Amino acid sequence: MTTAEIHPEVEATAEAIASMEIRGAATIASAAADALRRQASQSEATTAEEFQTQLRAAAQRLHETRPTAVSLPNCLRYVLGRMEGETVEALRTSTIAAAREFSTRVQTAQDDLGAVGANRLRDGDTVMTHCHSTDVLSCIKAAHERGIELSAIVKETRPRKQGHITAAELRDLGIPVTLIIDGAAGRYLDEVDHVFVGADSIAADGAVINKIGTRSLAVTARERDTPIVVAAQTVKLDPATLSGHTVEIEYRDESEVISEAEREEIGEITVRNPAFDVTPPRYVDAIVTERGQFPPESIVTLMRELFGEQTATPWEEE
Amino acid sequence: MTTAEIHPEVEATAEAIASMEIRGAATIASAAADALRRQASQSEATTAEEFQTQLRAAAQRLHETRPTAVSLPNCLRYVLGRMEGETVEALRTSTIAAAREFSTRVQTAQDDLGAVGANRLRDGDTVMTHCHSTDVLSCIKAAHERGIELSAIVKETRPRKQGHITAAELRDLGIPVTLIIDGAAGRYLDEVDHVFVGADSIAADGAVINKIGTRSLAVTARERDTPIVVAAQTVKLDPATLSGHTVEIEYRDESEVISEAEREEIGEITVRNPAFDVTPPRYVDAIVTERGQFPPESIVTLMRELFGEQTATPWEEE
Amino acid sequence: MTTAEIHPEVEATAEAIASMEIRGAATIASAAADALRRQASQSEATTAEEFQTQLRAAAQRLHETRPTAVSLPNCLRYVLGRMEGETVEALRTSTIAAAREFSTRVQTAQDDLGAVGANRLRDGDTVMTHCHSTDVLSCIKAAHERGIELSAIVKETRPRKQGHITAAELRDLGIPVTLIIDGAAGRYLDEVDHVFVGADSIAADGAVINKIGTRSLAVTARERDTPIVVAAQTVKLDPATLSGHTVEIEYRDESEVISEAEREEIGEITVRNPAFDVTPPRYVDAIVTERGQFPPESIVTLMRELFGEQTATPWEEE
Amino acid sequence: MTTAEIHPEVEATAEAIASMEIRGAATIASAAADALRRQASQSEATTAEEFQTQLRAAAQRLHETRPTAVSLPNCLRYVLGRMEGETVEALRTSTIAAAREFSTRVQTAQDDLGAVGANRLRDGDTVMTHCHSTDVLSCIKAAHERGIELSAIVKETRPRKQGHITAAELRDLGIPVTLIIDGAAGRYLDEVDHVFVGADSIAADGAVINKIGTRSLAVTARERDTPIVVAAQTVKLDPATLSGHTVEIEYRDESEVISEAEREEIGEITVRNPAFDVTPPRYVDAIVTERGQFPPESIVTLMRELFGEQTATPWEEE
Amino acid sequence: MTTAEIHPEVEATAEAIASMEIRGAATIASAAADALRRQASQSEATTAEEFQTQLRAAAQRLHETRPTAVSLPNCLRYVLGRMEGETVEALRTSTIAAAREFSTRVQTAQDDLGAVGANRLRDGDTVMTHCHSTDVLSCIKAAHERGIELSAIVKETRPRKQGHITAAELRDLGIPVTLIIDGAAGRYLDEVDHVFVGADSIAADGAVINKIGTRSLAVTARERDTPIVVAAQTVKLDPATLSGHTVEIEYRDESEVISEAEREEIGEITVRNPAFDVTPPRYVDAIVTERGQFPPESIVTLMRELFGEQTATPWEEE
Amino acid sequence: MTTAEIHPEVEATAEAIASMEIRGAATIASAAADALRRQASQSEATTAEEFQTQLRAAAQRLHETRPTAVSLPNCLRYVLGRMEGETVEALRTSTIAAAREFSTRVQTAQDDLGAVGANRLRDGDTVMTHCHSTDVLSCIKAAHERGIELSAIVKETRPRKQGHITAAELRDLGIPVTLIIDGAAGRYLDEVDHVFVGADSIAADGAVINKIGTRSLAVTARERDTPIVVAAQTVKLDPATLSGHTVEIEYRDESEVISEAEREEIGEITVRNPAFDVTPPRYVDAIVTERGQFPPESIVTLMRELFGEQTATPWEEE
Repeated sequence: MTTAEIHPEVEATAEAIASMEIRGAATIASAAADALRRQASQSEATTAEEFQTQLRAAAQRLHETRPTAVSLPNCLRYVLGRMEGETVEALRTSTIAAAREFSTRVQTAQDDLGAVGANRLRDGDTVMTHCHSTDVLSCIKAAHERGIELSAIVKETRPRKQGHITAAELRDLGIPVTLIIDGAAGRYLDEVDHVFVGADSIAADGAVINKIGTRSLAVTARERDTPIVVAAQTVKLDPATLSGHTVEIEYRDESEVISEAEREEIGEITVRNPAFDVTPPRYVDAIVTERGQFPPESIVTLMRELFGEQTATPWEEE
Repeated sequence: MTTAEIHPEVEATAEAIASMEIRGAATIASAAADALRRQASQSEATTAEEFQTQLRAAAQRLHETRPTAVSLPNCLRYVLGRMEGETVEALRTSTIAAAREFSTRVQTAQDDLGAVGANRLRDGDTVMTHCHSTDVLSCIKAAHERGIELSAIVKETRPRKQGHITAAELRDLGIPVTLIIDGAAGRYLDEVDHVFVGADSIAADGAVINKIGTRSLAVTARERDTPIVVAAQTVKLDPATLSGHTVEIEYRDESEVISEAEREEIGEITVRNPAFDVTPPRYVDAIVTERGQFPPESIVTLMRELFGEQTATPWEEE
Repeated sequence: MTTAEIHPEVEATAEAIASMEIRGAATIASAAADALRRQASQSEATTAEEFQTQLRAAAQRLHETRPTAVSLPNCLRYVLGRMEGETVEALRTSTIAAAREFSTRVQTAQDDLGAVGANRLRDGDTVMTHCHSTDVLSCIKAAHERGIELSAIVKETRPRKQGHITAAELRDLGIPVTLIIDGAAGRYLDEVDHVFVGADSIAADGAVINKIGTRSLAVTARERDTPIVVAAQTVKLDPATLSGHTVEIEYRDESEVISEAEREEIGEITVRNPAFDVTPPRYVDAIVTERGQFPPESIVTLMRELFGEQTATPWEEE
Repeated sequence: MTTAEIHPEVEATAEAIASMEIRGAATIASAAADALRRQASQSEATTAEEFQTQLRAAAQRLHETRPTAVSLPNCLRYVLGRMEGETVEALRTSTIAAAREFSTRVQTAQDDLGAVGANRLRDGDTVMTHCHSTDVLSCIKAAHERGIELSAIVKETRPRKQGHITAAELRDLGIPVTLIIDGAAGRYLDEVDHVFVGADSIAADGAVINKIGTRSLAVTARERDTPIVVAAQTVKLDPATLSGHTVEIEYRDESEVISEAEREEIGEITVRNPAFDVTPPRYVDAIVTERGQFPPESIVTLMRELFGEQTATPWEEE
Repeated sequence: MTTAEIHPEVEATAEAIASMEIRGAATIASAAADALRRQASQSEATTAEEFQTQLRAAAQRLHETRPTAVSLPNCLRYVLGRMEGETVEALRTSTIAAAREFSTRVQTAQDDLGAVGANRLRDGDTVMTHCHSTDVLSCIKAAHERGIELSAIVKETRPRKQGHITAAELRDLGIPVTLIIDGAAGRYLDEVDHVFVGADSIAADGAVINKIGTRSLAVTARERDTPIVVAAQTVKLDPATLSGHTVEIEYRDESEVISEAEREEIGEITVRNPAFDVTPPRYVDAIVTERGQFPPESIVTLMRELFGEQTATPWEEE
Repeated sequence: MTTAEIHPEVEATAEAIASMEIRGAATIASAAADALRRQASQSEATTAEEFQTQLRAAAQRLHETRPTAVSLPNCLRYVLGRMEGETVEALRTSTIAAAREFSTRVQTAQDDLGAVGANRLRDGDTVMTHCHSTDVLSCIKAAHERGIELSAIVKETRPRKQGHITAAELRDLGIPVTLIIDGAAGRYLDEVDHVFVGADSIAADGAVINKIGTRSLAVTARERDTPIVVAAQTVKLDPATLSGHTVEIEYRDESEVISEAEREEIGEITVRNPAFDVTPPRYVDAIVTERGQFPPESIVTLMRELFGEQTATPWEEE
């Protein structure tokens, strides 16, 4: 098969994802769904087989742009998994429907998730946050909009201090914010009613992969019996983990940890800067998604419902 | 009583401590002992009562310079507690002896402590450190000097990043150092054989007061079954806690946490910057002192041996 | 819409529930199903839309009688969720079938649950109970009827001492009963093979809401490694919690805790009398329902199977 | 009904299972499926009822040979549960299809499971094993075949030392093996990245029934935060436990524990030799099956998917 | 030896203790010390041996009145253990001095203990109490008198509801009191800064024997990370436990648990009413005594200091 | 100094220890004390210095025979630490007295320890044992002789199955014995009232070094809340650990684990056979010694009392 059969818009989308013009888990997934829809609607394939081959090629092209982002294969898997029928028209119709469905779902997911998370919050509660998660903010905003009075304790979240972004956004809402260093979290947990964190991805064994420091926070919160809630849209669920695959942890540049001046003063040492860590399900009280809340141990059931059991990648089938 | 009876050198020492010319737990304590010795040796008191009054006044003057430093009252208590006799000469002799004894002890304590801590280390071990503690460094250096090959994982220790100092000192010894952010400690604990931390002070109930972040580190280390050792000279033991007093946690300036530029960008939030936290004894495996190692639950026995049971402050008696 | 369209029997049932003539989770649910069935079978609606409007009105009327009872909305949701078809007749048929199905299920649920719970019990076992739960008694009775010899340790369960009712019922079966105060439970746990408790409701995050004291019992039982089983029919599962809603804990009158005479003697104090507490899933070994047994972390899957994902209340739709 | 209606091959298979000519969970299940298929294809039943009666009789005959083996009823339940239709031909077709499907599934299950388990392993990992499990070996082999370098620490697993078999098989693969006594497992856990154990059966409450010693290993592994994985094909899932039944632990002969000579020297003591123990789900990180990996708390969902909710035994129905 | 040698006042004291005219741990101990002092001061013994025999007889007479009260043998052991000298006069002097010392110590112990316990309390703290302990009240009163604002959550403490006495006394001080049933303690622990309980006796292995329900409270408090403090004068330390003796738990009458009317309604059941339970040291943060505070694991050191190692009972020696 | 100054009996004793004619912790220590006593009583030294040099040489000779046995340096340290005086005669007297004292103490220690341990046991108790410890047996025997009825569950204790010796000795006493494999301990813990184990040595941080498998047993017992008691004479306390030294674990021959025949069948694998493991104090409830019982966290206090703080080895001083 030649790539000529790939629709130009698919190509354009692929390039925009690769160059990070299009970024953010939900945005990427949504753009990919649109591209597949365009490919399906404008395909000139004359046989069912040809149509399917084109769609798989398009998916493959999209997938290769960011092979480790979990929302992208989720989109591709969703759409191709619902491509059904024995004629070109049937395939086209089912594919377009699936792509639209996926897009719609992603577009409303964060609001829906926020509404679910907000249901856990009550007047006067204090929430502790780690890093910057739009899913977490969606929960707090939804509660805030309902008139629930909250306050927040925000961990700065070294190395990149995304806690500052979280703090600014919450302050803009008029929520009282206390900023602390990461090491002080334990000291403030007894003033906290809920710890809310986001997720980079979630595995079928219930483990939560999130910004480095999440695991220590969760272990410490459990020791103090403070509930820890993970807010994560279902595009964060990683279907590859259904078949036992584990998540590769990205190591980022040392310059996030140590400035050149500091480096010079310290001399020849190693700096290690893992971006994420893995929190086992036993330290998490609930995962809040747009499909409702789940104990982490049962998220696998939702994953099977969403992705089916087949863990193969449809865009790689011949 | 007039302050005129206080020896000029006591006054000079007090001023140097107050202005922080003299700083560091051991250095302060040692200077105070020297000052008391001078007061005793040069006192012109003619009655035992007068002598005692002078010594108490001197102690009181020294104490008021840094009322929360634990090594200072320890010195005063040690010397005044051993001031015995019914004549001026007897009092003078016993006081001088006690002051000398205290000075000698402090001067050799860090080396002795280092030798004890080094005994826990074995060839090939990796040690994780928090903040910058000369007591911890003494242990690692002593092991290193015996030819034991070690490597170190150093937490940067926000907000002031004293981990950088630790990293530089260990690198100067030729020990391979890996620097990480505080939140990454959990991820590296399974490569670590011992966590070594210092102490700001240690309480009679076995609690360890140390640089903020110690408690989370200890809780996480216990969850992974990595032993946590506290290296602390006995001048860090706080006798006031024998009678139930708890340690007041100092809050430091927000500028350590957030720069003016960052502050401006985030806007009106609260920043809280506690300097220390409290680690309960159940998360500590051993306290290493110059008098040997102790489970934290039995440090009270050493405290009673060192300070006696009386928890009053001799410089405040009339 | 006028309430005139609500069938008189629906009105009568609503009044009986409101006045607590009809009470008990299963009885209420069953009566509501019967009322909906009557409304459906005797509806004179001429359009599908009219029929649906009537049914929703009937459901709303029933719901408003006891807005916090979990079995009532469960019934309404079950029946209205299965109201399907495009003609009045189709709607009528499906609604009646759903109502009958629900009624039948509730009527047999306790026996079925008892059979499941009994399967966990073996000859010679000792069971500890808390409060008075007909679901728990159903398990013990079923085992007893199979000839399994059991004995029971019954907590009195302050403030209302419903343990006395449990004790009397078990004694009537010929089961040897030991009555203890609540504080003595820990002391007897090593003579106990299973702790069985009921539930007021069960949340999607696996939390068990039950008579105050359950959580302490579960925490203590776990510390001694005694399995704790929750016996609860599926009408106790609270679908609102699927979307994150938390359960409001009822506070009851202080007169249950303290008599007037006692109150007079003590004077002006506050008495707090929460009726329930919340036990996290990690302290529960299994939830026994008429649909089988489940780890608490997977009860959400059964809830989604029973209620669907939509957490809206069909009687509130226009 | 007379047993004459049972096909001779069913009888032959039954005898071979009873005499243990046919043994091993998967082999037994596969043979039973073949026998049912033969019964169905060669049945001369003239009515649907007669056909069903024959099939139930065949199943009953097969079941009574090894009433405690979990894979056998799983096979019978699977096939009879899919026997559908209102005519002999329809019943025959559906039964044969179900029997073939089951056989195929069992035959590929171990390889599929191995592929899933291998996905959890990474280059340089050390795996600790207990007893001898072909499911665990399948995981290690699959990883090994992908070129992942592993080493193994093998517990000898008293009383029958099946660890020796595991050790020999791993060595044959060229994997470096360290053999230890069971009591030394705790000491080696900090060199171990994963503990892999098999299962005799798995219960709906997430409990894992496996060779005696598994529970202690899992408790100790959790205390050291080493992940513990259970590798078990779905034929090990015990559907009877869906309705609360618990697993009866087999006690084996004392001669496995103590030789006659040893016995004579010790004199009159009791020797107890339970074959299995029960590990609660909270000590297991994941169950790896041919259908993917699951947290133990959600295995009940897979069980319900595979077996349905009905916990009755179709071969016992009239 | 005849009992005629026992001083009439010893006899009178013995009778008053036996008849419970003299009651309460401290009061009994103090009366016994006075009696021994009288015996010593008025003894007409002419030889050292005769004097010692008399004193032992007096001690034995006192001891037999309440063989399970721990403060009584503590008094006798203290005084007889300090009876030293080779002449009657030396023995008399040392015995009288010891008796006076003991009396003085007991008389001031509760105040001293209160001062120690109060040091742990801070403005705004909430204290949870169990049962009625004058030692606990002494801590709260001392803090209150220093102007520290406290509030209290008081468990009613079935069966005898001594919590009502505690509540009334605290209210009399002007401290805001909330009364709860015992089962509600878990629910209120997150509003509590300290749990304070008394002790019936304390064992050398650090175990705390106290009013039934203490252990569950301590286990639950630890799970929530709320510190639990035991307030107990040193006369509660049980020297017999130094040599491994365990404390016999008293069972009290069922009428405390169940009224006659209730009993009649329930019928033939067993009622068990243990008065105390045993809390292991790992659930206690500190034991507060008049000699300072101790981790429970080091109370044995204080016991050895107070009682010596000899665990024999001097009044039983010949 | 020449070795000629070493008394021939010291030399003979040294040889007997080296050749293991003299073995067992208490026997070795006692023989060494006798040898030092002989050296002291028959020394012809003419100056105090010469006498001291001789004694140190004798101690050094004895020490070098078994450098890792803890009872031997304990003896030497005890005797040389009490060698006091400024003349030969004073030194001789004090040394002989110390040697006698030590011998006497060791000879009665096991009985005294047994009496302490027996105090923890009650009629009807079941004790679980690990390995073969005469200190543990002394406790059980003492209880048995007092008429306390006990039964025992004995772990076989691979690799050398010393449990068989324990089983035989208990059976000889008439105590009902159940023998189990090590992996079955968890399953029987709920029938057990106490776990009793011995110790190879005990460290100042409260860690217990004992036969491999002890740690797993202790961890599992704690998880089930079964108390674990360590029975160990004070000659097992290792004074070198006061200064942080850790205990070197001995690895024994693989032939204990695997027979030649087994080895041949398995092929080229590694066998690791550590003799001991280290149990942290948090899993031990009490250490029973002849000096009474102690929480493991306070054993350091007894060690300091017995050995002083100086951790140097007197026989190595010049």
